[in-house]
Parts: sequence; C-alpha cells; structure tokens
Amino acid sequence: MNPVRVAAERNTKSAVAEHNGGRRRDMAGLRVRGFRGNAVAAGIKYEDRLDLGLVVSDVPAVSAAVFTRNVVKAAPVLEGIRHMNGSDSRISAIVVNSGNANACTGQRGLDDYRAVCGLAASLLGIPAGRVVFSSTGVIGAPLPVERFEKAIPGLVKGLSGTGLDAVARAILTTDTCPKTATRRAVVDGVEITLAGMAKGAGMIAPSMGPPQATMLAFIMSDASVEQTWWQEALERAVETSFNRITVDGDTSTNDTVYALANGTAGNAPLKAGSSGAGALEALLHELLLELAMQIVRDGEGATKCVAIHVKGAGSDASALAVARTVADSPLVKTAFAGEDPNWGRILAAAGRSGVGFVPENVNLWIGDVQIAASGMGTGAGQEAAASAVMKQRDFSIVLDLGCGAGSATVYTCDLTEEYVHINSDYRT
Amino acid sequence: MNPVRVAAERNTKSAVAEHNGGRRRDMAGLRVRGFRGNAVAAGIKYEDRLDLGLVVSDVPAVSAAVFTRNVVKAAPVLEGIRHMNGSDSRISAIVVNSGNANACTGQRGLDDYRAVCGLAASLLGIPAGRVVFSSTGVIGAPLPVERFEKAIPGLVKGLSGTGLDAVARAILTTDTCPKTATRRAVVDGVEITLAGMAKGAGMIAPSMGPPQATMLAFIMSDASVEQTWWQEALERAVETSFNRITVDGDTSTNDTVYALANGTAGNAPLKAGSSGAGALEALLHELLLELAMQIVRDGEGATKCVAIHVKGAGSDASALAVARTVADSPLVKTAFAGEDPNWGRILAAAGRSGVGFVPENVNLWIGDVQIAASGMGTGAGQEAAASAVMKQRDFSIVLDLGCGAGSATVYTCDLTEEYVHINSDYRT
Repeated sequence: MNPVRVAAERNTKSAVAEHNGGRRRDMAGLRVRGFRGNAVAAGIKYEDRLDLGLVVSDVPAVSAAVFTRNVVKAAPVLEGIRHMNGSDSRISAIVVNSGNANACTGQRGLDDYRAVCGLAASLLGIPAGRVVFSSTGVIGAPLPVERFEKAIPGLVKGLSGTGLDAVARAILTTDTCPKTATRRAVVDGVEITLAGMAKGAGMIAPSMGPPQATMLAFIMSDASVEQTWWQEALERAVETSFNRITVDGDTSTNDTVYALANGTAGNAPLKAGSSGAGALEALLHELLLELAMQIVRDGEGATKCVAIHVKGAGSDASALAVARTVADSPLVKTAFAGEDPNWGRILAAAGRSGVGFVPENVNLWIGDVQIAASGMGTGAGQEAAASAVMKQRDFSIVLDLGCGAGSATVYTCDLTEEYVHINSDYRT
Repeated sequence: MNPVRVAAERNTKSAVAEHNGGRRRDMAGLRVRGFRGNAVAAGIKYEDRLDLGLVVSDVPAVSAAVFTRNVVKAAPVLEGIRHMNGSDSRISAIVVNSGNANACTGQRGLDDYRAVCGLAASLLGIPAGRVVFSSTGVIGAPLPVERFEKAIPGLVKGLSGTGLDAVARAILTTDTCPKTATRRAVVDGVEITLAGMAKGAGMIAPSMGPPQATMLAFIMSDASVEQTWWQEALERAVETSFNRITVDGDTSTNDTVYALANGTAGNAPLKAGSSGAGALEALLHELLLELAMQIVRDGEGATKCVAIHVKGAGSDASALAVARTVADSPLVKTAFAGEDPNWGRILAAAGRSGVGFVPENVNLWIGDVQIAASGMGTGAGQEAAASAVMKQRDFSIVLDLGCGAGSATVYTCDLTEEYVHINSDYRT
C-alpha cells in the first residue's frame, strides 16, 4: 500500500515519499476497542484534502497529556493545559485539524477553540468539558471557524471503528506519510491494545512536559489505568522518545501528546508499582519510540535517519547536551547528507556543547567503524569504510567522551537542499 | 576591482561572489607602518592558489589575542594560548595557512606547529618565541609540513609593505572575497593606523575568550599600547562584534584573533582610562564590527544579511539568548531566504530560547514594518510591506519582548540550498 501523498503541501518530495513508503510498517489499520474515528476535507487551508479529524472514546477515558515547553503556546495548548489541570481531566473526544495552528491568535484563538469543542460536544451529546482540540499548521492566522461549523456534523456522522486511520492522515502537514503504531499484550490476564498516531516533519525538536512540538500524537488504549500513574508513565515515555528526536531544532508552539485509556478491556485499574503497570509502560515507551522514529524518518527533506549515541560523559544530562548539539549541527547534518564521514565536524560540535571533556580521550564510531581514536583520525581506510556505512538510510554514531558513565541517545536526520526548498516556500 | 574568487573551493558561488563584489568597501590596500606581508601558493590542499601567508612586524609588537572557547581546540589555538600566557607575549610574525586546520592532530600537530614557527623564525632572524601560526581548513588531516618547508623561504623573501592584501587572500577557504578594513585617526596628537583582515564563511558562530570559527582575524596597528589594556580592549571589542555573528551556529575549533600593535607611530603608550585609549578602542570596535559584517555577508550560500535586534528583555543576557536562538533557527533562516515574513517562526524561536516572557506583550518589526503587535499578526497589508523589506540584501528585525530594558543584537544570514550544497560536498 502506498503512503498517502500530501501533494498540496509537499509536492516536491515524491522521491522521499516513495522511499519511505517502501519500508513502512504494516498498515493493518488502527483499531482499539471503544474508540471510533473519522476525518473529512473541511477546506481549512487547501481544498480536497483530509484536514479535520475526530477521535471519540465511547466512554470517558482516563487521560494524560504533555505539551510544548515553548514560551509561545498556541491556543489549543493553553486550553489543553487548562483541561488537564481541571478537576476532571477525562476525555471523550479529540478534535484535530491541520493547515492552521491557531497559534499567536490571542483571545479569538481561545474563543474559536471553545466554539469548536462546544459544537462537537453538542453533536456527540456529551459535555463540552470532555472534548479537547489540537491544531497544526501555519502560525498566526485565525481559525476559519465557519468551515469547522460546516464540516463537523458530517465528521460526527461518519464516526466508525475503522475511521482512525483517516484521522492519522488528516493531521499531516509537510509529512509524506501517516505515522501509526499498535501494540497488543496480555496484562494481568487481560488482552490490552495500545495504539497511536503521530504527525510531524518540520519544526521538530519536541520538548514537552506535564501541563505545560509541531508534533502531535494521540495514543489510545482500552486499558483501565489510574490517572496519576498514567500521567507519570506518559511523561517518562515521552522523555526518552519524542523528546529525543530532532529534525531542525525548532521546538513548536503546538507540540501535544494526548494519551486516552478508556478501560473497556475490563482489567483492574493499573497503578504505580504493579507488574501490570510496568508491562504497559514498557509497551507505551516502545510505541512512542516507534512513532518518534517515524517522524525523524519523514523529516522534511530527510534521506537519512541517524541515532547519535553519546556515552562516557560525566552525567546523562551532559551526554544529552552533547548529543543534542551534534544532532542539530548544520555541518554535521549536511555531512550526513553528503555521506561524508567528516568526523571533525562531530568533534567540533561536541566541543561547543557547553560540556567539558578531554578531546584526547574521545573515541568515535560510525556504525561499527572507528573513525577517531583518542581524538584523532584513524586513517583513509576507516574513512572509506565509514562512508560505506553512511550510504545506508539508517545508521548510528557512537561518541565516547571517555570521562564518565553518562549516556544519552538523540535521533536526527540529514539536512538536504530539499529541507531548504520546502521551508523557503512554505507559506507561498 | 573584482573580488578574488576562490574557485577551487567554492566554484558554485559565482553569483553570490559577484553580488558581494558589487558592494564591497574600497580596496585601497592594507598598509600599516612597520608591517610587511606576503603570501604564496604552497599546494597545501589545492594547487595554484594562495594558501600560505606571513605577516611581519619590523619590531616586536605588543599583542593581544582571543581564541575559540570550543573544548576541542586545534594545535595552533593550544600553542597560541601557551604563547599568550608566556612571560613575553610580544609577536613579530604570524604564519597562517588555509586548506588544513591542524585540528585533532594530537602531538604531531603541536610538533608541526613548532617546526613551522622555528623555520620561519630562523629565516627571519628572530627568536622562535616571537612567531605564532594560525591554520584554517579541514579538521583531522596532518599538516603537510614538507610543503611549508619548501615554501617558507620564498614567503620570507617576498615580504613587502604592500604584501598584506595577499595574506588576506591566502587565508580564505569557502569565502568568496577577502575581508579587510582600515581606520586612521589622530590619537594624542599622533596619526595612528588600525587595519585588519579576516576570513570565515562557514562553521561561523564565534565564541572567543581570553587565552583559553573558523574565523581568523589579524589586526595590525602602529599604535603604542600597554599590553594589559590592549588585551582587555580586544576582548571587549570582540564580544560585541565577532562574538555576535553567526552563519550556521557551529563554533569552530580554530577561531582566533591576534591584534598586534608595534608602536612605530611613536605615541606615548596608551593605557586604561586615558582618552587616547578610549578613542583607539572605539576605532578597534568599529574595525572589528566591519570585518564581522563582511563575514556574515559572505556566509556560505548567503544572499541576505539580517540584524536581529532584541530589546525589552529582562536583561542583556536574556536578550542575547533570544537573539542567538532566532539567528540560528533553520526555519527563520529559510524564511529569510524565501523573503517570507513568517513572523510566527520568529516568535516560536524566541519562545524556545529558554528565556521567559509574556507572548501577549511582544511586538515585532521587519525593517520599519510592524508585523506583530501584542503577540498577534498585524494583517496582510503589513505582511506585503514586510515582504518588500525582505527583498533587500540587508535588513533588520526588531523583537521587543516588552518586559524589561535588556537588549542585544546578533547578525545572521539566510539559509539557502547553496549552503547545503557547499557543505554536503566540502571534502569530496
């Protein structure tokens, strides 16, 4: 099955889209007990493409969420935080649109948010306080609410158990393909499903915390969970998945993850410390990491996905700072694009990260090829071997700072002319 | 006069070179009393291009220097720091090469540094301790010392008072044109000359401090100065010039500024607190800023030079952090390339800088066009006007955070497909 092309917004990326399409996971479809979905073309930015989606849980779902830490927060983020901090954070429905971020839209943005939630709630016959609403797209334009009003009745009418995949397509912007993942496991003797959808290709360097990219992800489960643990589990899982990816280092005003667990599986509610909770959390982390990797692989203009492993640092935090600096270095990322094992750029980026280390203790591998030893190059033969590794679509680098036990991994993509092309043109 | 083209390293940038050439300052030539220079083609990386230069002061010059704060420091930086920390930091000669950075070269790099300094000193008939040596180019390759040995005799033999411009060409790498500036003024009744040369186009985000991009700059003056004040004056002047520019955010292992004052003008030595010192320091800052701007304008692939002024911040340090984040944002820089007044990207970048502010208090101008007021867009008419401003080669943006009196300015360039092209290809 071919990936959906978002031709209107990313018509120049067909080669990459095909490339991505050839290697994507199974497309069996998103199905989770007690969840329905639907998406329509509401004409929010472009005509005739899916741009408005709805996810509904048949019963109010225990919910967890993390939002961008950017100081500039879009209206849906501000309202989402308000919802999560409220006395009852359960969610029955998520409305989501692409094409407009509803960011930097002031009071009108907040009013528009509430109007859309209110309309969806009334048509669904549920309280407005059980509906949340996420947006992604251009910053600074008011939401065309009349198009929402026109489209929402049909959106609600068409809800079905097989409609979640359409939502996964409706949330795409410069993405070339939908991003979904599913896990099933028996927890405490009950079969539980965990499924998620995500979007994001540019303005990707999520830094999300508790109520407080543009990446969006919606996680659905039929598990029964205790809310406090579910929120903590989501935060931990996000920290080492979505918060460890970067496309361009630009953290969005709209990054949001909602995780809904509706309890229809009938297990006893999972809470902190139980083995069942541990099992579900491991599954959740696996699911988020899979979605996060799908985002990096589909980064704007990307042709490579590179895992930057830093070890031997003074602390995990130091390792993470080094990994992030290397992962966002334009010179490192263009060298990846050029399949050039230009290890000096990697060391130079590490050296400007603000983290102290002794250059003479540093060892560096590209794949399994050691390209620098004790801070110096290992020669032309190794460079040739490393260059061969870099011809792959996915590879790793390991940077050992040789001064401690701290480690961290950040996932990045290469920086290509196509990235510049996409982003010089985006609004025009 | 046309700028020199560095065809071998940057043959794809002729359009930009012409563009730059049309607007460069006078090319009257670098002349400073008591200084001579020469450059030759030593074949360090490419054949038949100037790549080895020598600047000589007829008498030992009182010297100041700043070097990269990158943890990974090239051999010439390590040795330069050692020189400046020595009991006598006076400098009579600077040897400089392009094509090889002598970085990540271990003990051999240090030995090579000393061999080159020793050879130059012996041919010049001066102590080896009066010679320093800077390098720029590829990281990690050993210096081809035999080519230096072969070339240095001719280099010394050809020294002349008119030879400094040749040095300004020999230090170029991906630059499309040499960068020089001169100031003359009467200080304490004596005419004093201050002249400088610089190079740098990529791996430019200088962060230089006292002895401790690759951008290199060599400043020459015939003024007589007291060393402690001269060092302090250089540090202050660098802080608000070279340390405020960025091309790609990648701080080099080799960034170096040497400032030599040989006293041949015959003034009484300038020291801290005197009006003469104040006058010379103002001139020095002006000179460094002019050279810094030449670097940004010639940034790899750059077609625009943009001053990012941030004001209304809680402190100057906060303003600088915001300005740097905006100046290095790939999404902001590609919007500059596209002449797209995508102000939401500017606010989003500011919001991820780690600095707190209230988005609703933010005002933003592109040139003199207010594009956002109280955190929201000012409409299509203003966008059109801002887009017209962005069609210029040089323009400013002013971001007023509305929460204090702190301000700072950072100079950046746009991010074009050409930048990616140059850096995907650099070593191959």
